[in-house]
Amino acid sequence: MNLATLNNGRPDGQLVVLSQNRGRYVSAGRVAPTLQAALDDWDMAAPALSALAAQLDAGQISGQPFDANRALAPLPRAYQWIDGAAYLNHAERVRALKGTRDADLANRPVLYQGSSDSLSAPTAPIITPEPDLALDFEAEVAVIIGAVPMRATLEQAAAAIRLVTICNDISMRRLVANDLQNGFGFFHAKPATSFAPIATTPAALGAAWRDNRLHLPVRCEVNGVLYGQPNAGSDMYFDFAALIVEAARTRALAAGTIIGGGTISVPHEESLPIKPNGIGFACIVEARNVEKLKYGRARTPFLQLDDTIRIGAIGSDGQSVFGDILQTVVLL
Amino acid sequence: MNLATLNNGRPDGQLVVLSQNRGRYVSAGRVAPTLQAALDDWDMAAPALSALAAQLDAGQISGQPFDANRALAPLPRAYQWIDGAAYLNHAERVRALKGTRDADLANRPVLYQGSSDSLSAPTAPIITPEPDLALDFEAEVAVIIGAVPMRATLEQAAAAIRLVTICNDISMRRLVANDLQNGFGFFHAKPATSFAPIATTPAALGAAWRDNRLHLPVRCEVNGVLYGQPNAGSDMYFDFAALIVEAARTRALAAGTIIGGGTISVPHEESLPIKPNGIGFACIVEARNVEKLKYGRARTPFLQLDDTIRIGAIGSDGQSVFGDILQTVVLL
Repeated sequence: MNLATLNNGRPDGQLVVLSQNRGRYVSAGRVAPTLQAALDDWDMAAPALSALAAQLDAGQISGQPFDANRALAPLPRAYQWIDGAAYLNHAERVRALKGTRDADLANRPVLYQGSSDSLSAPTAPIITPEPDLALDFEAEVAVIIGAVPMRATLEQAAAAIRLVTICNDISMRRLVANDLQNGFGFFHAKPATSFAPIATTPAALGAAWRDNRLHLPVRCEVNGVLYGQPNAGSDMYFDFAALIVEAARTRALAAGTIIGGGTISVPHEESLPIKPNGIGFACIVEARNVEKLKYGRARTPFLQLDDTIRIGAIGSDGQSVFGDILQTVVLL
Repeated sequence: MNLATLNNGRPDGQLVVLSQNRGRYVSAGRVAPTLQAALDDWDMAAPALSALAAQLDAGQISGQPFDANRALAPLPRAYQWIDGAAYLNHAERVRALKGTRDADLANRPVLYQGSSDSLSAPTAPIITPEPDLALDFEAEVAVIIGAVPMRATLEQAAAAIRLVTICNDISMRRLVANDLQNGFGFFHAKPATSFAPIATTPAALGAAWRDNRLHLPVRCEVNGVLYGQPNAGSDMYFDFAALIVEAARTRALAAGTIIGGGTISVPHEESLPIKPNGIGFACIVEARNVEKLKYGRARTPFLQLDDTIRIGAIGSDGQSVFGDILQTVVLL
C-alpha cells in the first residue's frame, strides 16, 4: 500500500491512497482524514485503506491523477523525529577521516532528537538564513512506526514498522561544531527535514524490504549531476528494528514517531564526479573528506543558493519508488 | 484565561476552559476539541474561549467541578518541546561546581530538542526501567507558543507566547554523561517530561508575568519535605522571548511548540533540608553539588522508587497557580 498527504491548506493535509502504479489516488477521508489519524488507529485503518487501494487498482473507483507536486511530507508535522547513525562508514568519514571503526559506534547506535514540528514537502525550498552555512543534504531511509513500549524487543520493534520512505536531513555544517560543543546536541545545524511524497508499507516493497532494511539504491543529484547512488541496505550496520529498540531504552515511543537510519554510506574510494556506474555519496561532506585524503583539499563545494538537489530510491523497474525529493536552495 | 486538557480516552484529550478560581470547567468542544486545534487557529479560538470563561464566571454556564486528577498535560503530545538553559546558576552548579560564570553560557542560551510525543499527565507515575539511574526532577517554567517565523524579533517572539505553565523535566543523571559524550546530545537521559494541569494566558497572570518571565516561587517537595521554593523570575538570565528568538535562528517554529526555561535556580549557600523561609533547589543535583562543596560529599540521594515529587508555582494568595505536578517513581 502506498500513501501520500496532499496539501489542502490545513497543517496536516489530506491523506490519500495511491494505486499500485502510483499513477492515481483516492481520498482516504472516509477512513482517516490524516496519516496521524490512521496511525493512531492502524489496526482499524490499515485494512480499510488497503481495500480502497484494491478498489482503485480494480477500477471500481476511478480516482484522480496523482501529482507529486501537490504532496506534503507524509506527516507534515509529527510528534517525533529521531535520527540514527546506522551507517558506520558515514560516521567514520565525517568524524575522523580514518578507515578504522570506532568501537563505541559499533556497540550501539547513536541517536539524536530532531525537530518534527514542520517537516518539509518534497518540493519545498531549502530556506537558509545566510548564504554561507556550508549547507549539505543527507539522503536517508526513514520508517514511520506505531506505538512501541519502553524496552521493546527486536520483534516488537520490527512489527511496529508501518511505513517506509526516504528523507533529506538537511545540515548546516558550519553550525554543527558549535551545536555539539555546547554539549546539548544538534539544534541550529538541523533545520526542517524534507520527505519524499510517498510512504509505502513494508509488504508492498516486496524483496526490496528485508532484514528490516531497504535494499535499493538511493540516487542523489545536484543540478542534474550524479553525486551518488549507494544501496541503502548493503552497509546498514544497525537495522531499523535495532534503532527502534535503542530509542525505546528509557521511554515508550508514540504512534507516528519517525525514525531515520542516518546518511546512507557505502565504503569506496571514489571522488566526485562519479562514473555512471559508480557508488558515490549521499551527502557532500563525505565527498569532501574523501577528496581531502586523495587530493589534499576538498574540491566539491557545499550547496549554493539556487542549487537543486534531487533524491529518489530507485526500484528494480528503474522508477522512483517513493517519488523524488526535489528541492532548491533559497535565501530567507 | 485558564485552560486544561481532560482525559477522554483519546490521545489529545478534551480541551476545557476553567473558571477564574479554577474550581469549575466547561468543555471547549464547540470552539476547539483540543488545545492544538485552538493553537492552530488562536486568533479565532482565543476570544471564543475567553467568552466561555466569562460565561462560566458569570454563572451563565454552570460547568462541572474541576478535578485535576483527570487532567492530562495541556498538550498530551506536542509537535515540539525545546528546553533552554536560562538560569546560569543551574548550569554553573551542574557543570563545574564553580562560582564563575561561563562566558559562552551568558552569550546566548543553550537549547536542546526534547521528546514531545508523550508528555506526561501531572499525576502520571515516573516510570524508570532500572532502579539506579540517579533519577532527578527539574522544576521549570514553560510557555506554549503560536507560530514564529525564522529569525523572529524579540517583539515577535514575545507576542507569540500564548500560555504559561510549569513542568518537571525528569532526568536520569547516570545516563547524561553517555548521552553528551556521544556528541549528539540528550536522548536516553531525558524521558517524558510532565506538566501541570493548567496552562494560563500571560494576561491572566497579572503582575506575576512581566518582562517575559514568571515572577512566582516554584515549590518543590519530595515525600512532603520542602526541597526548594526559588522564584522563577529573579535569576532568569534569558527571558522567554530571548529563548524563542534563539530557537528560531535557523528555522520557523510551528504553533504548539513548547519552550522550557530550564531548571529554576537562584544563587545561595543552603543545603538540604532547607528552613521554612529558605530558597533551596528545584532539582536534586544542585543540592548534591552544594553539599559536595560544603561537606566534601553529597548527602541528599536522588529519587528512589516510591518517592513522590510535588511541584507547584505559588501565587500571592498561596494557591498553586497551575495546579500541582504530583508524581511517584515506579519501576517498569
